[in-house]
Amino acid sequence: MKSSFGQSVNITITGESHGQALVAVLSGLTPGIEIDNEYIRKCLSQRAPVGEISTPRKEADEFEILSGVFNGKTTGTPITVLIRNTNTKSKDYNEMALVARPGHADFTAESKYHGFQDFRGGGHFSGRITSSLVAAGSIARLALKKKGIEIGTHVAKCAGVADRDFENVNEDIKSLNDTYFAVLDSAQGEKMQAEILKARENGDSVGGVLETAVVGLPAGLGEPWFDSMESVISHLLFSIPGVKGVEFGTGFGLCDMFGSEVNGSLRVEGGKITPVKDLSGGINGGITNGDVLKFRCAVRPTPTIFKEQDTVNMKSFENTTLSAKGRHDPAIVHRVRAVVDAAVAIVLCDMLAQRFGTDWALEQCG
Amino acid sequence: MKSSFGQSVNITITGESHGQALVAVLSGLTPGIEIDNEYIRKCLSQRAPVGEISTPRKEADEFEILSGVFNGKTTGTPITVLIRNTNTKSKDYNEMALVARPGHADFTAESKYHGFQDFRGGGHFSGRITSSLVAAGSIARLALKKKGIEIGTHVAKCAGVADRDFENVNEDIKSLNDTYFAVLDSAQGEKMQAEILKARENGDSVGGVLETAVVGLPAGLGEPWFDSMESVISHLLFSIPGVKGVEFGTGFGLCDMFGSEVNGSLRVEGGKITPVKDLSGGINGGITNGDVLKFRCAVRPTPTIFKEQDTVNMKSFENTTLSAKGRHDPAIVHRVRAVVDAAVAIVLCDMLAQRFGTDWALEQCG
Amino acid sequence: MKSSFGQSVNITITGESHGQALVAVLSGLTPGIEIDNEYIRKCLSQRAPVGEISTPRKEADEFEILSGVFNGKTTGTPITVLIRNTNTKSKDYNEMALVARPGHADFTAESKYHGFQDFRGGGHFSGRITSSLVAAGSIARLALKKKGIEIGTHVAKCAGVADRDFENVNEDIKSLNDTYFAVLDSAQGEKMQAEILKARENGDSVGGVLETAVVGLPAGLGEPWFDSMESVISHLLFSIPGVKGVEFGTGFGLCDMFGSEVNGSLRVEGGKITPVKDLSGGINGGITNGDVLKFRCAVRPTPTIFKEQDTVNMKSFENTTLSAKGRHDPAIVHRVRAVVDAAVAIVLCDMLAQRFGTDWALEQCG
Amino acid sequence: MKSSFGQSVNITITGESHGQALVAVLSGLTPGIEIDNEYIRKCLSQRAPVGEISTPRKEADEFEILSGVFNGKTTGTPITVLIRNTNTKSKDYNEMALVARPGHADFTAESKYHGFQDFRGGGHFSGRITSSLVAAGSIARLALKKKGIEIGTHVAKCAGVADRDFENVNEDIKSLNDTYFAVLDSAQGEKMQAEILKARENGDSVGGVLETAVVGLPAGLGEPWFDSMESVISHLLFSIPGVKGVEFGTGFGLCDMFGSEVNGSLRVEGGKITPVKDLSGGINGGITNGDVLKFRCAVRPTPTIFKEQDTVNMKSFENTTLSAKGRHDPAIVHRVRAVVDAAVAIVLCDMLAQRFGTDWALEQCG
Repeated sequence: MKSSFGQSVNITITGESHGQALVAVLSGLTPGIEIDNEYIRKCLSQRAPVGEISTPRKEADEFEILSGVFNGKTTGTPITVLIRNTNTKSKDYNEMALVARPGHADFTAESKYHGFQDFRGGGHFSGRITSSLVAAGSIARLALKKKGIEIGTHVAKCAGVADRDFENVNEDIKSLNDTYFAVLDSAQGEKMQAEILKARENGDSVGGVLETAVVGLPAGLGEPWFDSMESVISHLLFSIPGVKGVEFGTGFGLCDMFGSEVNGSLRVEGGKITPVKDLSGGINGGITNGDVLKFRCAVRPTPTIFKEQDTVNMKSFENTTLSAKGRHDPAIVHRVRAVVDAAVAIVLCDMLAQRFGTDWALEQCG
Repeated sequence: MKSSFGQSVNITITGESHGQALVAVLSGLTPGIEIDNEYIRKCLSQRAPVGEISTPRKEADEFEILSGVFNGKTTGTPITVLIRNTNTKSKDYNEMALVARPGHADFTAESKYHGFQDFRGGGHFSGRITSSLVAAGSIARLALKKKGIEIGTHVAKCAGVADRDFENVNEDIKSLNDTYFAVLDSAQGEKMQAEILKARENGDSVGGVLETAVVGLPAGLGEPWFDSMESVISHLLFSIPGVKGVEFGTGFGLCDMFGSEVNGSLRVEGGKITPVKDLSGGINGGITNGDVLKFRCAVRPTPTIFKEQDTVNMKSFENTTLSAKGRHDPAIVHRVRAVVDAAVAIVLCDMLAQRFGTDWALEQCG
Repeated sequence: MKSSFGQSVNITITGESHGQALVAVLSGLTPGIEIDNEYIRKCLSQRAPVGEISTPRKEADEFEILSGVFNGKTTGTPITVLIRNTNTKSKDYNEMALVARPGHADFTAESKYHGFQDFRGGGHFSGRITSSLVAAGSIARLALKKKGIEIGTHVAKCAGVADRDFENVNEDIKSLNDTYFAVLDSAQGEKMQAEILKARENGDSVGGVLETAVVGLPAGLGEPWFDSMESVISHLLFSIPGVKGVEFGTGFGLCDMFGSEVNGSLRVEGGKITPVKDLSGGINGGITNGDVLKFRCAVRPTPTIFKEQDTVNMKSFENTTLSAKGRHDPAIVHRVRAVVDAAVAIVLCDMLAQRFGTDWALEQCG
Repeated sequence: MKSSFGQSVNITITGESHGQALVAVLSGLTPGIEIDNEYIRKCLSQRAPVGEISTPRKEADEFEILSGVFNGKTTGTPITVLIRNTNTKSKDYNEMALVARPGHADFTAESKYHGFQDFRGGGHFSGRITSSLVAAGSIARLALKKKGIEIGTHVAKCAGVADRDFENVNEDIKSLNDTYFAVLDSAQGEKMQAEILKARENGDSVGGVLETAVVGLPAGLGEPWFDSMESVISHLLFSIPGVKGVEFGTGFGLCDMFGSEVNGSLRVEGGKITPVKDLSGGINGGITNGDVLKFRCAVRPTPTIFKEQDTVNMKSFENTTLSAKGRHDPAIVHRVRAVVDAAVAIVLCDMLAQRFGTDWALEQCG
């Protein structure tokens, strides 16, 4: 029943879509990390809705850091980020309060909270909640940058359109972090957006696949049982609304290959042991091997659609139909990208702190 | 750095492939659950190697329950299961101690444990460790059975050969729990085994996909943040050696569909709200919806193969080659099936205990 | 490195004495608990400084509930309480930044945070931080009240003056919850306050002992290992600034008695087994026995005093002396009382939720 | 409901007084710590009953290390210690199964486990369970010794007789670790033992106070909230059967002193800041200050006595009387001493690992 995750570095998030505010608490981060407000804003803007492919609800996402930062640097004590909700149209949700949206958390929330949940805009289940996570995660990323660790995520597939694969990972990551619809091949990105618009016109929604690469990680992070790197990363990813699949390296594709193809080899390069063409995403036995960390996650089509659907009235227990009203995204995969970046940053800070201690971002690691 | 997982119901496992013994501690289970030793043995035998498609190392897997059971029933205090290793041929591993197997944990263990790890047979990273998890999980399954909750897993794909999908889930689960190479279509199972043998002849290995269904779960289990049902299930699954992907419901396949296809609908049936044709695997917003829980996991080809591979000597830091010696599995997917059943049972007991309290398996729940 | 505590019900607190704000997150509380803002304000005022025996710094302690409450009731999702700092005079602390106060956390914070900590007013180590804990705890107390569980704490001793013991516990608790300097014998309370004033005049400070009683708890809460009721209560109490001792029942006094005196007896009363004259504070073997829960905690004299003390300059590494400036309490024991009430309320909600499930405050328990 | 404690270093214990065996799992300890079996045996013998002042039940306490040690050194993966029960006379407990011992856990266990608990010899609530904790703790102490950290505990008071205070702490600790009835003044120890025998003759029991000192700890361990050093130490101490009070430094005695007396001073000594005459037990603001860590715990008189006591039959719900039969200790304080040493060692390893990372015992810390 905790709303927290992590051991040495820990994240807590709270809030509802149409509530007062969203709060994130990030604790255990190394003291002395310089806060870059521009960077936090940039990360938040990559989660924000853009253009016609997103909900018309635009939130300023003005954040306030309430604690844990002093003279522009982290203190080592818990960092609190506050983002107020400003643009809420709760009356759109009056009808939907009792009529559950199929595929959404309306019915499961009712099962768990007996009708006391804040149903407006999905309440605590809304993707809106992820904005404070992104703010906290961007601070974690500032710590990682001090150790040369960089994260980049692209929309590998959306509405049936595929982006190109990572090639020069370092440069690809750099380019992704300057884009708002994150693709490596911008022509493919255009096609994806066209498909999203088409879905919107049909009152429908589409999903996609995100692929993430992390460079600069040392070998030796993670546990054999039960906190493998895959375990802790997937734990956090699967709590992001809409994520329904996670795979590392070639993932499900490995199942159609032979061991000899998957294993790759190990080579000594520059006095260091390095995996070559290992398809397991930079993790063997649950522990990082020093290679690029790579994973993908599947983001389902948003459940709230304008098309009429069969559903029930949760109070009267009668069958009925629903066409969503209000402001909704025909796709969220391109926005979830910023949440994945933030989530993995927090997990990595935690694993580094567990391995190297509280001061890992100040001292030599790996 | 914990070797434990779970909050209200908690699992700890220890041991090494060629060490003295494997131990599992299962704590927090409802008192009064009758222990069925035959059932535990059956679950263990489903993890054991069978015939020519497995390693020739056969372990008796005689288990001893050291604590937590009194007069044949669980006491409510921690249950300890001990399984001694009896059939170890450690000398096979002498050469491999310093020469890392590509794709295996040899190199990452060295990075983390500085050469102090028990390298024999993969040590603490070996699949052998999962036998105590299976024993503990089978006790958890006995508790679930009291509430009508049943779990079944089949090899949905292996070496390119696909099993049929779940049809009548209740009956399919029952039939799976009586098989040792768990498929729904036995003809496809024969083909899979033929492919495994072919890989073995080539000194190679193959992987596969496992699909699991759980019936009888109430709606309302799981948390919005950060302990979604997907999060906690995937956390445990990804710590099983070889698992590289996890997806719920249609998973990655959802990304090529429209929201209107994925959502399904909600209907009132028998005075109860029920999801119909919802493709999200029985979980919406991280919380069970009362539908069949469904997920798949990808199991990579076993890394230890007899084919020659390029690798390094971790002491001399020289490039070399390696052809594995000893006794190894050309595929483990059919054995991992028993581990997945056990793991999900433990997670479900934990989520039920968090939701309904310690005595959930004694009283009315849901 | 977490700033959180608790399993099924969990508390997180953040903030600094002179920072922007104090935040508490209380998660896992049963949905449907009615919020009583007057009650929260009353609890906060019992922590607030009063009259001449306290610091002249007066904070409005206006709280804002940012999440987790909808239509005046808890939703079951995390509750966030925000209290802004308004009356900070940080310049008083300029000198003290580098010159460590003996007995305070100035030097230990420097050892841990390398000078990045917010030193103003004790920063994250200040008793000020406890205000959000009190707000959160008062909401937990509202849940307990629904089950007939009431908590009361009195200043059992202060500056050598002793209060009378609990007599009629139910009535004593009621009377304590209406007082601001909580004693059972008001004449003794007057004497205590006179001693506090005398200490203040000498530029010195005094400590005291708090004694707490809880009525209405069912038997059967707590764990044999490692979450005994004593363990979890003391864990939270010892994180309150100034607490240096915790004892249950007759505590240290038990050591001078015989087993036959300590044990008391068990009797059947009204069809229920009831402990009689058991001196162990309502807990046997780590588990509540249904008797009144009783414990005491020792609160040390406040370390910040106006008397000159020998100390060091942490930057120049030179010996020096310090006479505190600014606004400080000559005693905090009477204010800590509200923090103890809050802390034990949160722990009890957690133990009840672990035992009886999420909905414990809605349904029949015990 | 966990039977585990600790974050980076974690302990799990299981077993019952008359069950098959006792098991401890210690995970997260730095790899490469040399195992000294003689030392483990010595620590176990300090917990074992001695002479006429203890129960006549003598257990060999032969331990077997089942995992986590390879070539005589810790591997970094979980260490499992097994101790078989060999000398159990369960029939002594037949009468006591239903007739609850006042002051003992018999009734509270019944409340929690509904009669399914193993009642023989106190089952999971027995002090016998602590033997595996002592074995695990002695391994933790071997790691601490590598960093010059030493722990010593003496019986500061027993049956009204007081030992002398610590004087030369380093030498006192050394002398304590070679004794079985741990006092600093052996003449006082003789008097204590005489009092214990007298109590035994009266069919009664006595308690005592243990005082512990730890030398060699660096400043900077512990958290402001909620894992203060006092919090985590007391959490583990209060789960030891019989512990009813814990105080740090002068503890409850601080309440009768002035701040100016308690604070002591800070001085620069040898280029290092050092607390002088600080009475808070080596901890300020929850964080170690580099001074000797000092705490005391109160151990109640053993509840199982031969004197007749009023009690109830838990099945028939009738009042009755009980005179204990079987083999019982008239005092346990001198045996608990070994458990306290073990418990604090485990907590300190955890706090060091959290602060300095997994390899803290290999590298320079503090």
